Order: sequence, then C-alpha cells, then structure tokens
Amino acid sequence: MDEGLRPFFEPRGVMLVGASQHPEKLGYGLARNLLLSDYQGEIRYVNPKGGRLFEQPIYPRIADVPGPVDLAVLLVPAEAVPGALEECADAGIRAVIIASGGFSEVGAAGRALEVQCCDIARQRGLRLVGPNCIGILDTHLPLDTTFLPPPGPPPGSVAFISHSGAICAAVIDWARGQGFGLSRLVSLGNQIDVNESDVLLPVAEDRYTRVVTLYLEGVSDGRRFVEQASAAAQLKPVIALKVGRYESGRKAVASHTGALAGQEEAFNAAFRRAGVIRAETSEEMFDWARALAWSPLPAGRRVAVLTNAGGPGVTAADALEAQGLQLAELSSETRKALGELLPPAASLGNPVDMLASASPQQYADSLRALLADTEVDAVMVILPPPPMHTAAGVANAMIPIIQTASKPVVVALMGERMIQEAMERLRAAHVPEYRFPERAAAALAVLADRAENKGRGQPEFKLYEDVDQARVGEILSDTEASVEGFLPEDSVRMILEAYGLPVLPSVRASSAAQAAAAAAVLGGAVAMKIYSADIPHKSDSGGVSLNLGSGEEVAQEYEAMLARVGRAHPEARLDGVQLQPMIQAGQEVILGAVQDAQFGALVMFGSGGVEVEGLGDVAFALAPVSEAECDTLLETTWAGRKLAGFRNLPATDRVAVQEAIRRLGQLAADFSQLTEIEINPLRVFAAGKGAVALDARIRVNGEIYHK
Amino acid sequence: MDEGLRPFFEPRGVMLVGASQHPEKLGYGLARNLLLSDYQGEIRYVNPKGGRLFEQPIYPRIADVPGPVDLAVLLVPAEAVPGALEECADAGIRAVIIASGGFSEVGAAGRALEVQCCDIARQRGLRLVGPNCIGILDTHLPLDTTFLPPPGPPPGSVAFISHSGAICAAVIDWARGQGFGLSRLVSLGNQIDVNESDVLLPVAEDRYTRVVTLYLEGVSDGRRFVEQASAAAQLKPVIALKVGRYESGRKAVASHTGALAGQEEAFNAAFRRAGVIRAETSEEMFDWARALAWSPLPAGRRVAVLTNAGGPGVTAADALEAQGLQLAELSSETRKALGELLPPAASLGNPVDMLASASPQQYADSLRALLADTEVDAVMVILPPPPMHTAAGVANAMIPIIQTASKPVVVALMGERMIQEAMERLRAAHVPEYRFPERAAAALAVLADRAENKGRGQPEFKLYEDVDQARVGEILSDTEASVEGFLPEDSVRMILEAYGLPVLPSVRASSAAQAAAAAAVLGGAVAMKIYSADIPHKSDSGGVSLNLGSGEEVAQEYEAMLARVGRAHPEARLDGVQLQPMIQAGQEVILGAVQDAQFGALVMFGSGGVEVEGLGDVAFALAPVSEAECDTLLETTWAGRKLAGFRNLPATDRVAVQEAIRRLGQLAADFSQLTEIEINPLRVFAAGKGAVALDARIRVNGEIYHK
Repeated sequence: MDEGLRPFFEPRGVMLVGASQHPEKLGYGLARNLLLSDYQGEIRYVNPKGGRLFEQPIYPRIADVPGPVDLAVLLVPAEAVPGALEECADAGIRAVIIASGGFSEVGAAGRALEVQCCDIARQRGLRLVGPNCIGILDTHLPLDTTFLPPPGPPPGSVAFISHSGAICAAVIDWARGQGFGLSRLVSLGNQIDVNESDVLLPVAEDRYTRVVTLYLEGVSDGRRFVEQASAAAQLKPVIALKVGRYESGRKAVASHTGALAGQEEAFNAAFRRAGVIRAETSEEMFDWARALAWSPLPAGRRVAVLTNAGGPGVTAADALEAQGLQLAELSSETRKALGELLPPAASLGNPVDMLASASPQQYADSLRALLADTEVDAVMVILPPPPMHTAAGVANAMIPIIQTASKPVVVALMGERMIQEAMERLRAAHVPEYRFPERAAAALAVLADRAENKGRGQPEFKLYEDVDQARVGEILSDTEASVEGFLPEDSVRMILEAYGLPVLPSVRASSAAQAAAAAAVLGGAVAMKIYSADIPHKSDSGGVSLNLGSGEEVAQEYEAMLARVGRAHPEARLDGVQLQPMIQAGQEVILGAVQDAQFGALVMFGSGGVEVEGLGDVAFALAPVSEAECDTLLETTWAGRKLAGFRNLPATDRVAVQEAIRRLGQLAADFSQLTEIEINPLRVFAAGKGAVALDARIRVNGEIYHK
Repeated sequence: MDEGLRPFFEPRGVMLVGASQHPEKLGYGLARNLLLSDYQGEIRYVNPKGGRLFEQPIYPRIADVPGPVDLAVLLVPAEAVPGALEECADAGIRAVIIASGGFSEVGAAGRALEVQCCDIARQRGLRLVGPNCIGILDTHLPLDTTFLPPPGPPPGSVAFISHSGAICAAVIDWARGQGFGLSRLVSLGNQIDVNESDVLLPVAEDRYTRVVTLYLEGVSDGRRFVEQASAAAQLKPVIALKVGRYESGRKAVASHTGALAGQEEAFNAAFRRAGVIRAETSEEMFDWARALAWSPLPAGRRVAVLTNAGGPGVTAADALEAQGLQLAELSSETRKALGELLPPAASLGNPVDMLASASPQQYADSLRALLADTEVDAVMVILPPPPMHTAAGVANAMIPIIQTASKPVVVALMGERMIQEAMERLRAAHVPEYRFPERAAAALAVLADRAENKGRGQPEFKLYEDVDQARVGEILSDTEASVEGFLPEDSVRMILEAYGLPVLPSVRASSAAQAAAAAAVLGGAVAMKIYSADIPHKSDSGGVSLNLGSGEEVAQEYEAMLARVGRAHPEARLDGVQLQPMIQAGQEVILGAVQDAQFGALVMFGSGGVEVEGLGDVAFALAPVSEAECDTLLETTWAGRKLAGFRNLPATDRVAVQEAIRRLGQLAADFSQLTEIEINPLRVFAAGKGAVALDARIRVNGEIYHK
C-alpha cells in the first residue's frame, strides 16, 4: 500500500473537525458513528465552541488536539476547509477526509475552493479523500467516519468503493437486508486527490475482503485504472457497475472504427483487460458479490439441478444454458443412489425432480449424492414452499452439507413470506440464495467465470521487435496531411510496412501503354480494376480483370475493360485503371485503431465492407493487444469465427490475422498522434498464406475522437 | 365464454370427491380451502367411508349428492378417476377438475388412464381440467379448489394461468409478499381437455382481472393460441413466460431459413402477432404485472426522474434510455416551479436532483410539478433512505398525488430494511415500487409499449386476390421433386410467379451461337455469367458481363469470358454461360418460409448471402403476414433498415419488398406441403422499380422441419 494512504485505512487516531453537540447536525452523527464503530484508537473532537461530547472534551483548535492522531475528518463549511487543511498540516497530519459539501458540485466558487485545497495538499504533503463524500467505513478494524444514520453494515467480506455518496446508504441497507456484510466502504466524492485507482489495491489487499465491488461514474486515468484493477483482480474478484453509459452526441469521425468506438467499448475492453467483472445493474453486482464471497469456485461448468417441481426445473435448465453453463450428465452411481432415496415417479435425470412430497431428509441426501458425483461441478437447489414440509426445515437439513462442500451450491428459494425463515437461515449460514432460478444461474456463471479467469496472470504483451519506430517518426515529420488529417496513400503504406503490416501496392494507368509498363514494374501476373468515382460496384460492371500475365495481355485488356464498362455505365467518367499484383481469394475483415480519450489506443476487429457500421460485428481491445485478447477478438465476432472456415468458406490464416491485429495495436500504442487507422479490408488467405491490406487510411493529429 | 367452461368459473355448487377427515391428507386440505374461500354456493363432500366434515355430511356416493352442484373436483386415486367421471356424468355434472396425480407424468399406465378419461369425457359431454393440477382459485367469486396450505393469495387484479402446478404455491406467496393480489389462478396440469387457449378469454373477460399472466411450457395448438391470446390482449394486457427454450439437437434442414427458424422464433412471432408481452424471467413477469395492474398508461415515452441523489439518477437515466424511453425536456415553467421549491444547488434539469436534504414535502411538491408538465408522460421517483427523513414519510406525502394522477409514477425504493415501511405503504396504495431503478425503468417501458399497442386492433390481412392457387396445385401435382424434395427450377419459377413473385428468367448456353440465340429469346440487353461449379465468386474472376446488346456482342463476349475466366482459374471446368435479362443494381435480401410444427407457416426476412446464418440478421413473422408485421420485419433487421438508404447505399423499393414478403407468406400459408421456400437473394431496385428473385428454391413434403 502507498504509505501516504495508510492513515485512511489504519489510522492511529482520528480527529473530527466540526464535531457538534446537536443531535440533528451531521457533526454529531459523525461523532456518534466514530464512537459506535468501536474504533480502538483515540477519537478527538474539534469545534471552536469547545465544550464536551460523549464525555470527551471538544478542542477549540486543531493545534490543541493531543496525539496520536494521523487522520482528520473535516465537516466544516466549505470555505473553512482550506484553513483547516493548513492547520492539519501544521499539526503533522497527512491524511484528511473532507466530508463537507459545497465544492465543485455547486458551481464555480466551489471549484475554485477545490483548486485551493489541491494546492495546499501539494505544498504541504497532504492526501485528501473527498470533498463531498461519505468517508470510509471498516467493519473489522473497526472504523466508521460516515454520518449515516445507524445501524451501519454488519461485518462481512464484501468491499464497496463508490463515486456516489448517496448510493452508500442504500448499499449498507441492502447489505443488512440481504444478509451479507461489508468489509470496507470507501466513498470518494469529488476525488480532488485520492481516486478509485488509488484505493483499489489497499482494499483488495485487506484480509477480510473477499470481493471488491465498484460503483463507477468514470475513471480518472484509464491506463492506471487498468493497471490497478488488474493487480486487484489477481487477488480478489472485482465487480464493477459503470453508470452513465448512454451519451447523446458524438464528435465527427472519419472511419468506421471511429464511429463504432465509444466510451462503452473502451470500458468493456478495459474491464476485460483487467479481469474486472462488469455488472449491468446494482442488483446483479450484489447478487454476484454474495456468491463470490461465500462460495467455493467450481472446477467446471457442469451443474446439477435439484428440485421438487418440474416447472421451475425447466426454468433453471433454460437459465443455465443461457448463461453458458451445462446440465451435468449424472453418473449411473448417482442415479442409482437417487433411485434409492426417492419415490419411483421421481425423475433421476438432470434436473432431478424429487416430486412435491420431497422431505428435508430427501433434499439433504439427494444433495449429498449430487455433490459426490465427479460429473458435477456445482448444484442449484430449487425450493418453492414445499406442500408437506417447511422451507426452513429443508434449509436446515442442507446447510451443514453446503457449508462443508468443496463445490458451490446456490439455492433458488421461490416465494416470499413462506420462505422468510429459510431465507434468514441460509443467509446466516452464508449460502447464496435467490428468489428466482434465473438469478441463481447468473451467480453460478460468475463463479465459473471467476474460476476460469483466476490465476490466469497478467496478460503477456509480446511486442514485435522488428518494427521500425524511428522510420514512422521520420515519415510523420516529412508528410503533410490533408485538411481533414488524412495521410497520403504512400505514407500510409510506408507506415504500415514499417510495422510489418503488408499493404498491396497499387499503380494507376490511364492508357494501354502505361498499363503495360506499370504491370512490368509490379512484376508477375496482375489484376486490373477500372478507376472511376462513378462506379461503386466495379466487379459487377466487368471492371475487374484478374491474372493478366504479359504486357501485351495487359494492354489489350485495358481497351477491352474500358469498352465493357463503358457499355454497362454509359454515363460514367472512366479515369483509366488501377493495377495491383495478382492475389489469391480469401476472406476479408476490417482492422482499425483509435485513440480513446480515457484509455488511449484501442484496436477494433470485425466484419468490414460497407455494412460494418450497420451490422456492428466488431470487437475492441486495448492496445497493445495480448495473444489472449486476440483470441477473444476472433471468438467474439462472426468475422473472426468464420476465419476458421464455415460451410463453403475455407479456413484461412488466423495466425496472420492475429499478427496483424497485434502489429496494428503496437503501432497505435506507439503513436498516439495517429488518431484513426483503418485497414478495410484485410484480405486473409488460406492457412500459412498470410494476409494483406487491400486498402488503408490513417488520420493524424486533430482532435482525439470519441463519442 | 364457452358455455361448457362456465361451471369452472361460476359453479352453482361444488362437490369434492375424495374429501378426507384427516388433516394431513390433501382431501382435507382441499375441503378446508373450499370452506375458507368463502365460496357462496353449496359445498358437498364425497367419500365412500361417509361421516361428517366441517359440520356437513360426507356422502358415500356421487349419486347421493343433492344439488345444485355443477362442478366436481376429483381427488381420488388415478385408477378410480374413470369410474368417478362416469358417476359425475350420471349425476348430470359437466365440469370436472381432476386434481389427482398418477397419470401421464408417471408413465405408460398413467397415459392409458388419460386416454380412457378423454374417451369418457367425449362420450358423456364432460369438460375436464387436469389431471395432475392444483385447480382453480378465484378471490372475488370467491372460490378455492386448491389444496395448498393457507393463506391463499389476497384478492387483486392479476390473473395467473399455469402449466406448472408447483409454481402456483410460489406465485401465491410472491403475490402476498410483493403486495399484489390475484384475481384468478388456473392450474392446467396435464391438459387432457381444457388447455391454455380455452381459458385465456374467460380469464381476460373477468371484470376483476386487469392483467393476465401465463406460465407456458408450450402450447397445444399454435394458431388457436394466437387467436385466443389476440382476443384476450385486446381486453387486458397479457404477459407470458415461456419456459423450455433451449433445446439440443435439430433436425436436418436444407435452407438458411430452415436452419434459423426454431421454436423460439416461432413463439416470438406468435407473441408479437397476438400482442402478448414476453417476459424473460418470472421476476420480470410480476414486476410488469404490478405496474400494468396499478398504473394508468402513459401518453408517450418521455419520463421525468425525481431523485435526492445524483448517482442513482444517472443509473435511472441510463436504464430509461436502454429501455427505449426518453428523458423528458422539462418546460421552463416546471423548472421555475422546481427552483422555488428546492435549494439553489439542486439540479433542475432531468433527472431533477433535489439533493440529500429533500423533505417529504419537497418530494411531493416536486412530483406534483413534474406531473403537471405537458412534456412529461411518466415519472420515476428515486428514494434511497433519506439521511434526514424517513422513506415512509416521503411515501406518505407522495401517495395521494400518485393515486390521483393520470400519468404513471413508479418508485425506485433503494435499500432493504430501512425502506420496509415505505414499501408496505406504497404497496398498500397500489404504487408500483422496485428496489432498483433498472427494474423500475423496465416496468415503465412495458407501460409505454402497452399504451402503444392497446387498441391497435387485430392485424389486418389483406390477401392478394390475383394469386393463382389452382395453378400452384396443378404444378405441384405435375412435378416430381428430387430425392431430397427439391422442386425443379422451372416449377419453382412457375409457383412463385403464380403468386406474383417475379423470378428472373435464366437460360444456359454452351456455345457462342447458342448464347446469341438465347439472348434473342430473352430480348433486350442481357447479362452473361460463367456457368461452372468450380468458381464460387463469379464476378471476381471476370465471369460476369453486363449490358450485352446485340447477338454479335453476346457471341463475342462468350469467347472472351471463357478465355478470361480460364486464365483466372486454369483448373476450373467451365460449362458455358448463363444468360439473364439485364437488371439494375440494387440491394439484396433473403426471404424464406418454413412450416413450423406448432404455429404453421412462418416467414423469414433479413440479410442474405453466404453469411446469413452466421450473422443471424433475420426476423420472423407468422404467415400470412400483415402490413404492420411487414414493417416490423423491416425495422428490426439491418437488412430492412438499410433498404431506406444508408451512407452510399441509395434508398430502394421497400414497398416491393413488403409485397414480396406478404405474397410469399400467402403462398406458404396456402400450401403447407411447401416445407421450405427460400428466395436468396431478392434483388431490390430503386423506389418504384420493384424487386426480383435472382435465385429461389422450394422443398416439398418430407418432414416438417423444425429445431
């Protein structure tokens, strides 16, 4: 942990500046919470009015406060905060939580105060949390610097880091209501100094914390967030809820990649890179946090469903498949064991339907049998109010088995009032239970994902050493871009080639003789394409001829093509032809890169062509791109999946595509002034035969484009 | 209502056959529920043992029971059911609920018993609900023929029809726990006679029912379901949860349409046709049911958000946009009114952030101001535990306003224990409240959808009268299909043309002279395509020539093309050329039809080409297809949206595409022996210029293909 942050998490003593004797004041509530939290260090109160509070003196000035105190919590009017910071610094305090509001959230004057606070902090070596925050709460240390009405959260193993202070009260209440405890809660407020990236590791390293949850409104520094979140996720599962996703209005962009790359794509790429689990709703975040905090991780994705009713069993099976889990194939031993436990009409397949008469004992024994099956990685138990028994009775019978199991068990406890007691018991026993099989299935899927991702280590970035960074620098300083920032075709080819990205050369000719000469320069067989701005679909108009060998053949075809296309498009203006070396057929994909304002270089891969934006069959990764991330780009797009072959499409050189993606990523990461790079299409040949960019554009400088 | 079903819903007297004096028996529980339900007609008990129950005699035989009784509930061993049915018929009873289990759900013997029961019912004019069901419950009549442990559901306005008996106990408990009441509950069991389609209208017509919810495991007769559900949805909102969606294993199919058309697509098309709202989870179903039962419908999609905290406000805004709703632009009057009510730092935009200090009075006054704004169609109130007040206090202040508003208001009541009292009050006042803004937003979206769909009337099917049904019959009886069931190309063209679907004629030629002759037959300018099984991408190989005018030109190009393509593909076997009339460029789409086992003819529309299956950019509708459904097909696919023009793709003749879809649907609906029809591609020309099938296949007879 950054030593400067230690006093926030392990203070030797806490001073509340702005303590109040009046129960309706926040300065009273905060003092009360500090006291009730059972914090073991010294608690000191400061208020110019002096007096006593909770049988302790209130010191009139910060300078009067006796040590040891190394954390100050300020709850004074905003305009008094700068002075209080100076006094804290004079008193040797280095860590301050500014709980006061009235800063940038209320306008320009507040913003100016924040600047002043930052200056003082920089000059005097202070670290600040807030302003406009709820503070820090630790149920194990314990410590509570919030002013929220009691009761606080029960002690537990879920940590919560939040950009929103308002959500904290609801989260504490959810934690209490849903029976999970919190380990630490950190409310960051306006983040003039300490931000989410700073506290991720200190929170993940806390030994009582088993899961870290994040409520994010953005990130302060994208790359640093990725680095800190990756390190945190190596230690503990990290779940993030990112709000503020739908934004209206985009800046003008000049490429498909630019149009498709938005803040959301960048965040998703960053979360994937960091191994952060993204929740779509607050409900999901805490559903998953409970499962991750309480359950062992499964060894695989094979789930057994134990139910006393067919309908919910079907729902569960549906939900498991929808979540990418599988219904386990039960072993014959397990079926036999179940057959001995259950009535003849019971269904011994998976879902195991014990019928409505199932007793607590049958639930427990069947669960034990399923957990013993080596074909089963996890169990979902479905428990509607049983007609002949109580749900609590079933819960009691199962709890000891679940608590000692090395496989996760989640319970879909269906109902509301009749399952209240069962719910309380399961929660007290730290068994994840959900009202609906669908939510239980989602929680199991998160456990399976975490098991797969855990210990996968940081991604490895093998950078290509044969790239010529200096050459690209030269080209860029020698080249003049167009008004819109586009580089000339030659520069584009040279830049891409300097990074090992092959671009098909192309020569124009406007007479038969020129065409023959150009073909000789290119060497070998050539392809000829009509050159005309008026003809969108060249090949449909006879405007493409392939495999032309001799110069004579080229010259002859030049005349033939102009005549042929002229017939098909009498009105079109024909500006001669373009010649390229003859290349093999293959599949075509799009590769692109943009510079995201938050996270820097971002690479896009997917289906190209005119329809790229409409179909949106693309995926993004942060650049540079690891091999594993390359695999993900290919697996999550149809363009990538079909590179392996599909129906009559033969398999292609996936390796060459991955290399192209990684080389492009390296280029974009090395040169942030390349705001948009797009290769559309990259023609991909048969396995071992490589790939080549048929067309590419690069845009430089200008604005950094983002939605 | 079908008069035969009336005794199930309005019995003049009920007889329980299998009543028991032993409290642990279901026959006791059922008698108890009948009594406790406050049913106003006669309740009679039958058991061969005789005796007394709840101060009434138990009659030994059905024949002994005095009238008026017109509904019997059987809870006797399965093997005694047929005899009991005979006795019921003898006693003049026409409606029987078979609550007993032990039928097809336990195997072949039980299935045989069901057949026997069906035979008796048919011969004796009985209507049967069940067997293996929970029976029928009506909280307003009132009547309760279930044997579930009390308490039953509170009276309310949500009806529940279920294929699963087990889910009923959970639903009753949810209803009680979530504070909504049920009007009717119908458990259908094994459905040997009465099924979901039979009870939909009787339930929707019930005056106490405001919303109908369905838990479906399938449907008995797809088209009848659509018809009954449409009629029900005209009266009341119908929400369906269809379980059993993921099936492994598909039958072999011979077209893209066949591969893409599964049971799920058919159900979605059916629900859309019927105006049934499909819920993905049980939780969604009841979230939405509460909103629909309790709230007025909004006039539009513009939502105001009222919050005391910024973070949840952002979440709410995100969720509203994700659900296709809009943040309302508040009028200047409203902003002014809010400005007078709220502190200076409050945010008067939308979301309206009143700040954490917001009082019950401020919540109420601000809500009133928002509801008065003509720019606002609905309001979402966000209420985390307020730091200075109680959530219940806020709820109390808002309830009278919400209850008298003509616009819907939903409350995101965030937290758990600290909002318990507010929750109870809101529920008691019939205000929909949800723990999370995301769920509240989804409920608002359902209200807006219902408002838009309500009273849209039954879809109109304008069938084309110029189709030649008899001609298709003749062609089919004259034609011999291939082994795999494919019709020859000529028959395909004739069939499609008989239904007004234009197919491009095509003539083959294997010499220059033949080609010239064929071109003369086709008339006008022609296109020439190389004919070879070895060349997948004809145009890329110079194998396409357009706009050939004279016979001489055609003959000359024949030789040129064979030479050109031969150069490009030296190994390919070239079988001459294909000639077609010259057609304009345009966009290409796929049209298809299959016969679904459950719902009959199903039409598909979307992006064609080799990638159709990989991209899955297709949508389905039941055939025949209404004009509104045609619009939906075009709006929900990228292929359809871009017909209106996109970037450099010009706008095309959408009307012609819609006509083609509807003509194809009419053909598929008229001839169920056409198991797969596929037009791939349909070339669509500029507006007013029509569309033409470039290639089409029809498969007949054989199996009916479905997943």
